Amino acid sequence: MNLRAHWMRGGTSKCWVLERAALQKTGFTADAVLPRIFGSPDVRQLDGVGGATSTTSKAMIVSRSESEDIDVEFTFAQVGIEEAKVDWGSNCGNCSSVVGLYAIEQGWVAPGQDVTEVRTLNTNTRQTIIQTIPTPGRQLPESLTSIVPGTVFPGHSVQLGFLSPEGRTTGKLLPTGDAISQITVGDTTAEVTLIDAGAPLAVIDAVKFGFPAETYDDWFDQASTQLESIESIRREAAVAMGLARTPDEAERAIPKIGLISRSTDGASDLQVLMLSMGKPHPAMPITGSVGVSVAAQTQGTVVANSLAEPSGHELRIRIPGGVLSTFTEDSSLGRTVGVYRTARTLADANLPITADQLQGTAASQSEEDSKCRV
Amino acid sequence: MNLRAHWMRGGTSKCWVLERAALQKTGFTADAVLPRIFGSPDVRQLDGVGGATSTTSKAMIVSRSESEDIDVEFTFAQVGIEEAKVDWGSNCGNCSSVVGLYAIEQGWVAPGQDVTEVRTLNTNTRQTIIQTIPTPGRQLPESLTSIVPGTVFPGHSVQLGFLSPEGRTTGKLLPTGDAISQITVGDTTAEVTLIDAGAPLAVIDAVKFGFPAETYDDWFDQASTQLESIESIRREAAVAMGLARTPDEAERAIPKIGLISRSTDGASDLQVLMLSMGKPHPAMPITGSVGVSVAAQTQGTVVANSLAEPSGHELRIRIPGGVLSTFTEDSSLGRTVGVYRTARTLADANLPITADQLQGTAASQSEEDSKCRV
Repeated sequence: MNLRAHWMRGGTSKCWVLERAALQKTGFTADAVLPRIFGSPDVRQLDGVGGATSTTSKAMIVSRSESEDIDVEFTFAQVGIEEAKVDWGSNCGNCSSVVGLYAIEQGWVAPGQDVTEVRTLNTNTRQTIIQTIPTPGRQLPESLTSIVPGTVFPGHSVQLGFLSPEGRTTGKLLPTGDAISQITVGDTTAEVTLIDAGAPLAVIDAVKFGFPAETYDDWFDQASTQLESIESIRREAAVAMGLARTPDEAERAIPKIGLISRSTDGASDLQVLMLSMGKPHPAMPITGSVGVSVAAQTQGTVVANSLAEPSGHELRIRIPGGVLSTFTEDSSLGRTVGVYRTARTLADANLPITADQLQGTAASQSEEDSKCRV
Repeated sequence: MNLRAHWMRGGTSKCWVLERAALQKTGFTADAVLPRIFGSPDVRQLDGVGGATSTTSKAMIVSRSESEDIDVEFTFAQVGIEEAKVDWGSNCGNCSSVVGLYAIEQGWVAPGQDVTEVRTLNTNTRQTIIQTIPTPGRQLPESLTSIVPGTVFPGHSVQLGFLSPEGRTTGKLLPTGDAISQITVGDTTAEVTLIDAGAPLAVIDAVKFGFPAETYDDWFDQASTQLESIESIRREAAVAMGLARTPDEAERAIPKIGLISRSTDGASDLQVLMLSMGKPHPAMPITGSVGVSVAAQTQGTVVANSLAEPSGHELRIRIPGGVLSTFTEDSSLGRTVGVYRTARTLADANLPITADQLQGTAASQSEEDSKCRV
């Protein structure tokens, strides 16, 4: 049998987009099908369509929504490379940006006169993302000119707006009730904003923590010498936000943590260095930028206090790789906070697959129905 | 417009297979189209279908042959990753193994009762390769069981037989006229067979060169300490074979060079360590195995002298990664020498491409028509 799939670039990732109905027709679970079509388990994914890196071993499962408020539901799948298994536990912000474009290209949503708004729901996180794509004269343009940092070629411009991101995990925008908390580790006390918007985030006042605003170019290396204390602050933050009972029980990626100061380069509003999985991050996770943007608009936070003037519709955040722009906008469903990505379809394909190839895989049809996301 | 392309695994490589007519219809040269659809120049090939490694940034351009003796002509393209350019100068043995399978799947060749023989011509090297694939009951089997070293999953078994490989480059099987030559570098004299079969090859008698047969497992590391003298021998060989006027002018990959001795493991006939681009090679280039196989059947060579008994239809060559089997067989066009690979189609796709994307690429339609391989 053949499985129809579209290979698409979303921001700085590539993912294979499959329709839920097509996966169901195979008679096998996504947990069985996805690793096999990607060529896993194999460090080079030679016998499949995976790209053998974490940013190119991804899939999106999409379907038209039955709900009145949503156009498309999508489920993100991080497909293991050396392991034949799928991680369903999070969303990928970059890959999310293919979904609205897919819906327009497949005729699921009628194009708007100038732009098309596609209301999408990520099922991994239950986050509604309003995706807005230019369609001048009710058509996707043939000539593409938008480029985002980290990519070489242009694509369709995609505005990814996170709907009402406040309190998505803990139920409260400021889980402690305070805009600023003092967190002490050893003989260091940091001023930290603990906020839940997009994802739970701890934002440290960099200057008060010994990272001068004028030496932003050195923060990356300087942070590399203080990983332990920053991680200790993060774990204390997890407890303070109600995300873990003790610092030891804090999850590695929740909350996220970063250093922030006012900007000194004249081309941005704030300077941020995020850390991810215990290391300085050269860019910024999309949900991190959402959290920083909401914090910028929340009185009394470290972020708001770092701004020269109150935050408006757009925020320019300096990161090691350049400047990231975020926006705050009203959509048909409510206020959204988000970023810009680009996306493009690379291939429209049929992938041959046989029952023979799926026999003996870890998750066949009769097993673990509770894991079945199809 | 859409460009039809099939993604196929050939041995340990992946390549996109395009038909010459389809490329020509774009109105652009392959030098312009291939890098762009692969997403080059970009170290991650994010905006295209390339796999961002040298074994997954490859293409095959195929067409049905007008000649009576050949079924399919094919041209191999090594697509640059960080450079938007194509290297047409050699063939890829692994990727060659997709061509016969493609011809059968596309109905270009009628399947035989048990096996199907596809007569293919590689245009990069003007080498005819007879590809033989099992088609029991005149059908490609749905259940695949053949696996070759270096791959995880099975594929269609492909016998790749190089037709009359003798003297393809120099015109003579033994370019010096001798089965064994003495080559001296410094105070070392090596006994070397200089042979042209498949590709020009220099085979050093390992034992006489100080590499005991019993210590094959150490050859890789030992060779790493003698790279200079082995490379000097290779360059002298190039001059002796008429491939270069002086040792300095010898090309980096021509001739190939390797060390050989009798086997000591009881599961092979010979032990070989090849060097490639000045370093010990963990496997063996297919043309190198062809050269060694022909040398095994040529009286008086280092290879023939290393065999316990005269070489027959099959030769088992021990390489660092395992044992490689080669065969010598008669085909409808003459004697062939070759190896076994496996191949499989991964995706049947349409790749969207616009004239807009190809404008401003290095080789547009009006430029450099002499480079046009389409």
